[in-house]
Amino acid sequence: MTAAPRPGVGLDALPLRDNLRGGTAYGAPQLEVPVQLNTNENPHPPSAELVADIAAAVSGAAADLNRYPDRDAVGLRTDLAGYLTRQTGVPLDADMVWAANGSNEILQQLLQAFGGPGRSAMGFVPSYSMHPILAAGTDTRWIPVERAADLSIDIDAAEAALAECRPDVLFVTTPNNPTGHVVDLGDLRRLLDAAPGIVVVDEAYAEFSPSPSACTLLAEYPAKLVVSRTMSKAFAFAGGRLGYFAADPSFVEAVLLVRLPYHLSMVTQAAARAALRHAEETLASVALLADERKRVTAGLEEQGYDVLPSEANFVLYGPFTDAARAWQRYLDAGVLIRDVGIPGRLRATIGLEKENDRLLQVSADLAAEELGPLTEEKR
Amino acid sequence: MTAAPRPGVGLDALPLRDNLRGGTAYGAPQLEVPVQLNTNENPHPPSAELVADIAAAVSGAAADLNRYPDRDAVGLRTDLAGYLTRQTGVPLDADMVWAANGSNEILQQLLQAFGGPGRSAMGFVPSYSMHPILAAGTDTRWIPVERAADLSIDIDAAEAALAECRPDVLFVTTPNNPTGHVVDLGDLRRLLDAAPGIVVVDEAYAEFSPSPSACTLLAEYPAKLVVSRTMSKAFAFAGGRLGYFAADPSFVEAVLLVRLPYHLSMVTQAAARAALRHAEETLASVALLADERKRVTAGLEEQGYDVLPSEANFVLYGPFTDAARAWQRYLDAGVLIRDVGIPGRLRATIGLEKENDRLLQVSADLAAEELGPLTEEKR
Repeated sequence: MTAAPRPGVGLDALPLRDNLRGGTAYGAPQLEVPVQLNTNENPHPPSAELVADIAAAVSGAAADLNRYPDRDAVGLRTDLAGYLTRQTGVPLDADMVWAANGSNEILQQLLQAFGGPGRSAMGFVPSYSMHPILAAGTDTRWIPVERAADLSIDIDAAEAALAECRPDVLFVTTPNNPTGHVVDLGDLRRLLDAAPGIVVVDEAYAEFSPSPSACTLLAEYPAKLVVSRTMSKAFAFAGGRLGYFAADPSFVEAVLLVRLPYHLSMVTQAAARAALRHAEETLASVALLADERKRVTAGLEEQGYDVLPSEANFVLYGPFTDAARAWQRYLDAGVLIRDVGIPGRLRATIGLEKENDRLLQVSADLAAEELGPLTEEKR
Repeated sequence: MTAAPRPGVGLDALPLRDNLRGGTAYGAPQLEVPVQLNTNENPHPPSAELVADIAAAVSGAAADLNRYPDRDAVGLRTDLAGYLTRQTGVPLDADMVWAANGSNEILQQLLQAFGGPGRSAMGFVPSYSMHPILAAGTDTRWIPVERAADLSIDIDAAEAALAECRPDVLFVTTPNNPTGHVVDLGDLRRLLDAAPGIVVVDEAYAEFSPSPSACTLLAEYPAKLVVSRTMSKAFAFAGGRLGYFAADPSFVEAVLLVRLPYHLSMVTQAAARAALRHAEETLASVALLADERKRVTAGLEEQGYDVLPSEANFVLYGPFTDAARAWQRYLDAGVLIRDVGIPGRLRATIGLEKENDRLLQVSADLAAEELGPLTEEKR
């Protein structure tokens, strides 16, 4: 992890909490490879104009770095509300929007306020792998509910699980990571009606999808619904760490009780506001990625792979006879994708055109071998 | 809190955790006043050279903003280890240093790893007001132990409390906020020997003090001692949000199990590294502030106030007949200081020379009235 590891007393010598013993740190490998398609990053770097605008904004803010930042980040939240209003068509004010260091911190704050010891959170797996980790980190009991065979949510089964387990928090990820599935508003209403607690709709990939946002349901379910978003994906701002949510103002009041004071630095607030000023230009790259997703999907299907219908910036495909070996073959060929632990399937982020060409080429090579997609006759 | 508050369903309509009900959000008032001496900020703004260096560093980092940051912040931790080695004289490597968004996040991560449900944390009050809040936020039972009449730690009583309560985590703040007291190494050894769990020595204000750092005890107590620091105060980097700790490498392994992945943005890492390159220049302001602290202390004592011996960038003084009214009088005169809830006492941050002059002037006015210091005859 560091350049010069130095022997310490070892984790076993420390009075670590029992539920952490034997655990391993979260993390996709951070490897230097030519084609990085493993963490659903946006492959388009910020434009020179955006970089210059961020530098100017940070320079302006830096003159006050000796002072604490605006604890409530009102300016940034106002800008986020304006963007989300334009993007979803739902009128939103700053007092309905909250921001934090990435959507991980957003979800952690919601679990601190509405989960915790003696409480539970439910999700439909496979989904975002941080949901159970965040639940564990806040001592919230995690209730995983398996998805249907096609990895979409079985709404009837979900209603039954909600009635039986009565979770305090329900996570619904749409488009879902790692499958790409979207939950339509009719199904979302059924989940909201059935959920006894709050419902966090995780829309990290919403901008890649033409489907309407769950924000359109906020007025209908003010005491239940929270819609979380991130600037990591569509805004190509993963390095800037900015997640946010939209909800009834009372949810903002709730997280104010648990958020660390001054959690968002001046520099983060200034950089994110600069990025939001370039929203139109940045979101143009989203349309390009949606086109590339269609091309990659068609290419993989032509090679014999089964590709789940995705409205995000990644595809989950297979089946591979040995996903772990196939993953290594991609890596050996300079293409880093993700083994998310679903037997026989791998997830690839949609990259730049030439990166996707490389992905398709390696996929074709594997398809020509025994590692390739399981064709009907191989099954 | 926001520009246009909008009526929501209200907190009572939400299924908030019971232990948060009726609570209020942490926070010193963020008011616009001419003389801000309430949050122990460093009054010296960054130099033009430092601002330019930060802007250049962020500009360089911004070109990769579409990618996730280095999750383990190895470059930044290497620079912090180098600085801390120079400042404390204790050789430290990157694998003995961990960084987060302010020392609040550092302390929260330590409580997530070593505190939590069924565990307890002890502190000597009055001290940093976030310690009990962070304990509550991680469901760690908080055990406050009262300080001696002079607000220093009564080490005999502390040993007894440690033997009786056996806390999993002990906080020792030195110099202590809000009193300014320093715990000497002999006393610290007694606390470390008596503590059954880990000991977090919070050295947020260490650079203002000539006393040796607890880092000098790290080799003696590798499985117990964590020294937390911040760039907010001495580095005049409160707006940048960078806290860190030094400890045996196994403590870094421990927080890796609970930290949010990618918690430190590229922008934060780049800005903090730029600030560290200017350490010498920035720390020169620390010497100026220490001189001003002596001047303010002497001035207040001359006016009849009792001032606690402080090695930090603030002083706690009094006694006032009515601290709340005195606080308001300072504010009315354009000087924002802090009522930390200690009867009859107020805390003032050491500011620029002219800000301190204003503080002394208002203090003299109050001393001439019934609000002033309780003289022997008034008592």
